[in-house]
Amino acid sequence: MCGIVGVYDKGNINAANAAYYGLVALQHRGQESAGIAINNDGIITCYKEMGFVNEVFDDKILSLLKGDMAIGHVRYSTSGSTFAANAQPIVIKYKNGNLALSHNGSLVNADLLRGQLEDQGMIFSTTTDTEVIAALIARNYKGDIIKAIQNTMEIIKGSYALTILTDNKLIGVRDGYGIRPLVLGKLENGYVLASESCALDTVGAQFIRDVRPGEILVIDKDGMKSIDYITNLPTKVCLFEHIYFARPDSIIDGISMYKARENAGRILAKEQPAIADTVLSVPDSGTPAAIGYANESGIPYSVGLIKNRYVGRTFIQPTQSMRELGVKLKLNPLKENIKGKRVVMVDDSIVRGTTSRKIVQALRDAGASEVHVRVSSPPVIGSCRYGIDTPTMEELIGANKTVESIREYIGADSLGYLSLEGLLAAVGSKGDGFCTACLNGDYPV
Amino acid sequence: MCGIVGVYDKGNINAANAAYYGLVALQHRGQESAGIAINNDGIITCYKEMGFVNEVFDDKILSLLKGDMAIGHVRYSTSGSTFAANAQPIVIKYKNGNLALSHNGSLVNADLLRGQLEDQGMIFSTTTDTEVIAALIARNYKGDIIKAIQNTMEIIKGSYALTILTDNKLIGVRDGYGIRPLVLGKLENGYVLASESCALDTVGAQFIRDVRPGEILVIDKDGMKSIDYITNLPTKVCLFEHIYFARPDSIIDGISMYKARENAGRILAKEQPAIADTVLSVPDSGTPAAIGYANESGIPYSVGLIKNRYVGRTFIQPTQSMRELGVKLKLNPLKENIKGKRVVMVDDSIVRGTTSRKIVQALRDAGASEVHVRVSSPPVIGSCRYGIDTPTMEELIGANKTVESIREYIGADSLGYLSLEGLLAAVGSKGDGFCTACLNGDYPV
Amino acid sequence: MCGIVGVYDKGNINAANAAYYGLVALQHRGQESAGIAINNDGIITCYKEMGFVNEVFDDKILSLLKGDMAIGHVRYSTSGSTFAANAQPIVIKYKNGNLALSHNGSLVNADLLRGQLEDQGMIFSTTTDTEVIAALIARNYKGDIIKAIQNTMEIIKGSYALTILTDNKLIGVRDGYGIRPLVLGKLENGYVLASESCALDTVGAQFIRDVRPGEILVIDKDGMKSIDYITNLPTKVCLFEHIYFARPDSIIDGISMYKARENAGRILAKEQPAIADTVLSVPDSGTPAAIGYANESGIPYSVGLIKNRYVGRTFIQPTQSMRELGVKLKLNPLKENIKGKRVVMVDDSIVRGTTSRKIVQALRDAGASEVHVRVSSPPVIGSCRYGIDTPTMEELIGANKTVESIREYIGADSLGYLSLEGLLAAVGSKGDGFCTACLNGDYPV
Amino acid sequence: MCGIVGVYDKGNINAANAAYYGLVALQHRGQESAGIAINNDGIITCYKEMGFVNEVFDDKILSLLKGDMAIGHVRYSTSGSTFAANAQPIVIKYKNGNLALSHNGSLVNADLLRGQLEDQGMIFSTTTDTEVIAALIARNYKGDIIKAIQNTMEIIKGSYALTILTDNKLIGVRDGYGIRPLVLGKLENGYVLASESCALDTVGAQFIRDVRPGEILVIDKDGMKSIDYITNLPTKVCLFEHIYFARPDSIIDGISMYKARENAGRILAKEQPAIADTVLSVPDSGTPAAIGYANESGIPYSVGLIKNRYVGRTFIQPTQSMRELGVKLKLNPLKENIKGKRVVMVDDSIVRGTTSRKIVQALRDAGASEVHVRVSSPPVIGSCRYGIDTPTMEELIGANKTVESIREYIGADSLGYLSLEGLLAAVGSKGDGFCTACLNGDYPV
Repeated sequence: MCGIVGVYDKGNINAANAAYYGLVALQHRGQESAGIAINNDGIITCYKEMGFVNEVFDDKILSLLKGDMAIGHVRYSTSGSTFAANAQPIVIKYKNGNLALSHNGSLVNADLLRGQLEDQGMIFSTTTDTEVIAALIARNYKGDIIKAIQNTMEIIKGSYALTILTDNKLIGVRDGYGIRPLVLGKLENGYVLASESCALDTVGAQFIRDVRPGEILVIDKDGMKSIDYITNLPTKVCLFEHIYFARPDSIIDGISMYKARENAGRILAKEQPAIADTVLSVPDSGTPAAIGYANESGIPYSVGLIKNRYVGRTFIQPTQSMRELGVKLKLNPLKENIKGKRVVMVDDSIVRGTTSRKIVQALRDAGASEVHVRVSSPPVIGSCRYGIDTPTMEELIGANKTVESIREYIGADSLGYLSLEGLLAAVGSKGDGFCTACLNGDYPV
Repeated sequence: MCGIVGVYDKGNINAANAAYYGLVALQHRGQESAGIAINNDGIITCYKEMGFVNEVFDDKILSLLKGDMAIGHVRYSTSGSTFAANAQPIVIKYKNGNLALSHNGSLVNADLLRGQLEDQGMIFSTTTDTEVIAALIARNYKGDIIKAIQNTMEIIKGSYALTILTDNKLIGVRDGYGIRPLVLGKLENGYVLASESCALDTVGAQFIRDVRPGEILVIDKDGMKSIDYITNLPTKVCLFEHIYFARPDSIIDGISMYKARENAGRILAKEQPAIADTVLSVPDSGTPAAIGYANESGIPYSVGLIKNRYVGRTFIQPTQSMRELGVKLKLNPLKENIKGKRVVMVDDSIVRGTTSRKIVQALRDAGASEVHVRVSSPPVIGSCRYGIDTPTMEELIGANKTVESIREYIGADSLGYLSLEGLLAAVGSKGDGFCTACLNGDYPV
Repeated sequence: MCGIVGVYDKGNINAANAAYYGLVALQHRGQESAGIAINNDGIITCYKEMGFVNEVFDDKILSLLKGDMAIGHVRYSTSGSTFAANAQPIVIKYKNGNLALSHNGSLVNADLLRGQLEDQGMIFSTTTDTEVIAALIARNYKGDIIKAIQNTMEIIKGSYALTILTDNKLIGVRDGYGIRPLVLGKLENGYVLASESCALDTVGAQFIRDVRPGEILVIDKDGMKSIDYITNLPTKVCLFEHIYFARPDSIIDGISMYKARENAGRILAKEQPAIADTVLSVPDSGTPAAIGYANESGIPYSVGLIKNRYVGRTFIQPTQSMRELGVKLKLNPLKENIKGKRVVMVDDSIVRGTTSRKIVQALRDAGASEVHVRVSSPPVIGSCRYGIDTPTMEELIGANKTVESIREYIGADSLGYLSLEGLLAAVGSKGDGFCTACLNGDYPV
Repeated sequence: MCGIVGVYDKGNINAANAAYYGLVALQHRGQESAGIAINNDGIITCYKEMGFVNEVFDDKILSLLKGDMAIGHVRYSTSGSTFAANAQPIVIKYKNGNLALSHNGSLVNADLLRGQLEDQGMIFSTTTDTEVIAALIARNYKGDIIKAIQNTMEIIKGSYALTILTDNKLIGVRDGYGIRPLVLGKLENGYVLASESCALDTVGAQFIRDVRPGEILVIDKDGMKSIDYITNLPTKVCLFEHIYFARPDSIIDGISMYKARENAGRILAKEQPAIADTVLSVPDSGTPAAIGYANESGIPYSVGLIKNRYVGRTFIQPTQSMRELGVKLKLNPLKENIKGKRVVMVDDSIVRGTTSRKIVQALRDAGASEVHVRVSSPPVIGSCRYGIDTPTMEELIGANKTVESIREYIGADSLGYLSLEGLLAAVGSKGDGFCTACLNGDYPV
């Protein structure tokens, strides 16, 4: 997972600031590295480092990034690389000048394309798909950058939302299936592109619309031009954005992430009812579904687990002896709302099952008489090939165990998943328009 | 406000780890500086710096702090000091060896006592009350440290919860009114003292009880000894701990902080009803009261404001031009739950009014048709003299405006505060046992 | 200017340590950035950052760089780039796997070659000549890396000393003129390549010989193979290495840097005698020549300027008001050896003249009755095209003023430069074998 | 060892800058911690941390230290403390306001005085002698700070040079024996006090004179007042300042440190002649004596060891395997000047003998046919009680071995020390005026 932004704020040489705030709004999409590339009268400068957005950038560095056109990127750890080599945006020099790219997604034919390019003598500085895209654009360039991008879109397969900076243009691209999101907003003197609409709110841009699957948006001093380039593919928006990744205050492809999750909770309450005294959520991601479950079922919602907001990345892990004492560093049960009660614990997904198991145990330790786990999505049975960092099949508990044996493993009194039909209904779909590969094995590309 | 801990884990030379985790659990009580003093066979070493607990300490520094007896401190900025001079614990050398102290609270006669000591030739290294307490203990020491502490308790006036490290003892002290909290927990081979019970959960200690007002707890290799030293004062626990400061998963003086706040919300719904479509909270502190209000009133609770968890201290503030764009950095309204609705917005307090004003405006921008503000505590009309960093009287909106003019200032359609009686009822009081100085001017000391 | 190393220490997975110590020995050749690339069983990892070698690397980072084959690089600031993008070694992925390169020197046809490659669709990640060399090797690769390097050497023009890491080889290359130095040393189980022999001493390697101009050295598990590939060019070793850049304890192309400078001082004493009481040096670089001048002339050598070793890069520059007080931060005159004396001040070069002017003034302030400046090299009249960061022609005082007007500008009583013949004699040349472009305009390439 | 400064620059609120530059000039006297206390209209603020002066202070911190009166301190590691607790200046609050002190020296009755003060109820925050001095001043204060200082001087025994900041005065104090140095300089609108005159040059102050043994200098807005308070003690200036510690460009008590060392070399050449081809120094401290030796003996001086200026504190130590390769990290022999030669190696002192042994071996490895070691001071046979961090008696080779067995240990062909008489002659003494305790056991206090 990654988050991308693009900003063109005509005449404002501090456009990097908007890119910075946009990336902070998208920080949940990637915490490993952050970067901004800026175009100052055709000169592209890029700064990127390992770390959170507010660690990578400070006043001094932002003040060095002058220009009115910028793109940015936050990156989730997609590989074991310890160092910054694969951070984005990437910047290349090619025959037409400079090109900076930020990419969210994953190509399925990257290795093949990379091999073909290398056979033609191409060199690469990173192991990213993104550099393959950049190399293809450079290779396909014959005097028209848009044509070069179009030719590249014909060759690359998989998911990609891109923000591209040329010597004088900001370009947004979304793959033909629309797997990864990209939205468009308006500034007084320009435009903002971002992975999610919450980034538009954060920089004070007005939401205009989603970039369409297969669309190329070209923004420069003359305004914005739209090219619907790939139009023959079925839309296959990633369902996991709606269940899990996107911020609840984002609206993607016309759907409120909060509402989708609350709906999922409501439908879950119908599909998987429980006799209980209270509905609890696993904060923060399970909260909207828990509220939906409570409202639909009539069982009162209450706060059951308190999250320590200060337990971050640099936190020192407890030693074995402390772990055995049952330390509650990150989540502490609120005994008042649990003790002696039959609780429904709502979470948005179960991936490996280890976290659920710990939480069920903590709820029991806090005195819960029964623990009924309800999950607002179906079991994950397959890995994502389009950019989400799901674990391997061996680790995916949903791919290896029945619901009953998962229940046993996590120690719940009952366990119920939302059905795929229920989830599709929650996002307003009649069964199409979404990629459900990881839930039913139906890989679109 | 500050947070303090004390740990004696007999024979475990890594007691600093438990102090560290305890301080992380108490991080909400002070973010300016953090420190730990450790006793290693009578040698006391202290490390303290400006910053969050996990910034101040890393593996290397913790590994240098060896010993089985430790105290710790997190400090809220109580003065303009830019540098670390006033960080705690403080460590002094005196005739009986070393003494380390962590203090939460504020003396009302500190200046007087300091002047008297200086007249007798005493020198001080800090401007803290804590060093005055330490100097008095040293001055009163005549061969018995407990007597020295008792003599000191007779002289100092105000609020104090203390953890003290001597050459061979861990001592906990709470002032005679019990204004600041202090709880006691049990480890397999020792004890833990902490400002709040959530710190006990975090280090895996079993909650035993609150330290009693006026009590001295002496913990050493022979076990624990309790001395109820000051017993003639009325209990005056700080109400603001319950409304605002303490973590919701803490239990202080027998009261669940979560329940107290939920109760406050319920009583508020009765005292200050509203005709509305939804109840929203100002996260995170307003959430328990909002849920209570919703449950009592029958108006559905929903999530109305999304908090960006990554907007921390090192965040770069937006420029004026970006502020005018209406950037939503920290709190973003969730339009789905607001648009076209009459909303009740529940917060735990209004101090200066500026934040409430911004949020009301943001709710209106998001389409709220009516905004009814409900506050789960009475107006703050006076400054705290016992350790809470309330603004000056000039800044306290409750001390200077009527409820109606506050409503007008923050732009709400209606505004209702919880009554003092209601608040006392929420914490289970029949009218006594609590300090209500900042709410009704009744200063106990 | 840059410094490069290459290490192959068969079976020692900590070869990065030797690269690190070698770079520390070469730190005087570049203080802007430092980097090491390591080959661990065919996997190349690279770490590079802005800063001194001992700032960029610490125990933890070195421990992550496992492998028995390494190259390293220190880089002098050759452009205005604020960020790390142009740091070396560079690592590329190409059809034959990975390739890491460290380069000292400068191509004169880099722009032309880069343009040709870009026209063929090549992309670049940096603006360095080094990446052009890498791209040409990749492009020329047809199954034999040595052939690819040879084909590249036929195309690139200018100065280059290279250390190259392939999936299983360490390769050293020196351009046909031998402009930049490269020496070869022996470890018990391997070899070391370095810009200067002092790096061999530092890592405990035995000096074997200089790499010959035009030679390719291929080192792998089967030993070392030498290919004298370009043999038809006249040797044109950079004279400035001998005058100025290389460490005095280095031996390059058979010449001791210390002896060359002492000889220069001796010949200078004959060419430009002075009637004086003492000979002083501008530390540290002027010291060998000053000692030579003193020994030849019979005028006693003494220490005249004390250098503050703690005034480094992060030093805060004095304000104007302090500058006017005549602060002596970096060099402080030793009045005892100056007061009332006629002094000869020996320096190795005068580039802009501003430093010399300040020192002459400081010597007069310290009471010198006469100041005779002697320079152990001829006036610099042209910029270097082969990798030394000389100022522009406008700034080069030797290119714009007569000796007499330079004397006047720096305020000396007399000024004498070493002749080019004298300098060549000092390095043992009969007039050939050296690049003298910056001294007489005779550019070899 | 420590270095201290005091600055009063009337009306210049950036006096901290001069203190900073002064401390940089004195950095050789202490590298463990650095600190500056500033007086801004009676308010004293202090910033101090572990590290070099230019690591501790940056532009931002200096800009927070506003005021026209400042003192500063650099501290050598005098104990095992890992943390900053004992850094100076120390600042105390006492009945008359604030007091900041910087101290160079060591009291011999500190423990006794500390015990007496503790018995009277005094508390201390550090384990330094300096806080004992501060406590005595506070205790003795009866309305007149000068009297309080005088009363304190009557009680404390040992060595002390002090700079003191009161609410409106800068005070300099030197102990009655004058063991530690302190000099006075003039700014246009104020004065500077410093441990050495090189600090005056660095801040552009004119040297006036040394502070006299037993003198108190009081500087405030009305000018400077001198009180010669203790006048009945013999002067006992530390000889090691002249041999070793002070910078060669400093003039202390009327003696040029450079000249003293050169003289010592000259006298050493007469006392301990050698038949040799060249005289080498151990850089940097042995250089003046080596030049003196060479000039007196007629044996030519040459550079024999090149010091790597980049091998600093953060340098990673080589592993055992690299050490065995004979790595030459810090000092590299210059073979040209050594090979086949009989060398005289001049150093300023031999403390433990381990470094000398390594260097002798390195010279032999570089081809020296004979190595004659000459030391420009007598053997150190006792520890210093007045502030110099000499090793314990067990480690002092001069206290435990004869000259012949030291020669054997270090592996030299011959070894000769300067006599005490010779050293006293070198500093211009007829046998009195200097502390020679560590050389002949004659402890003055």
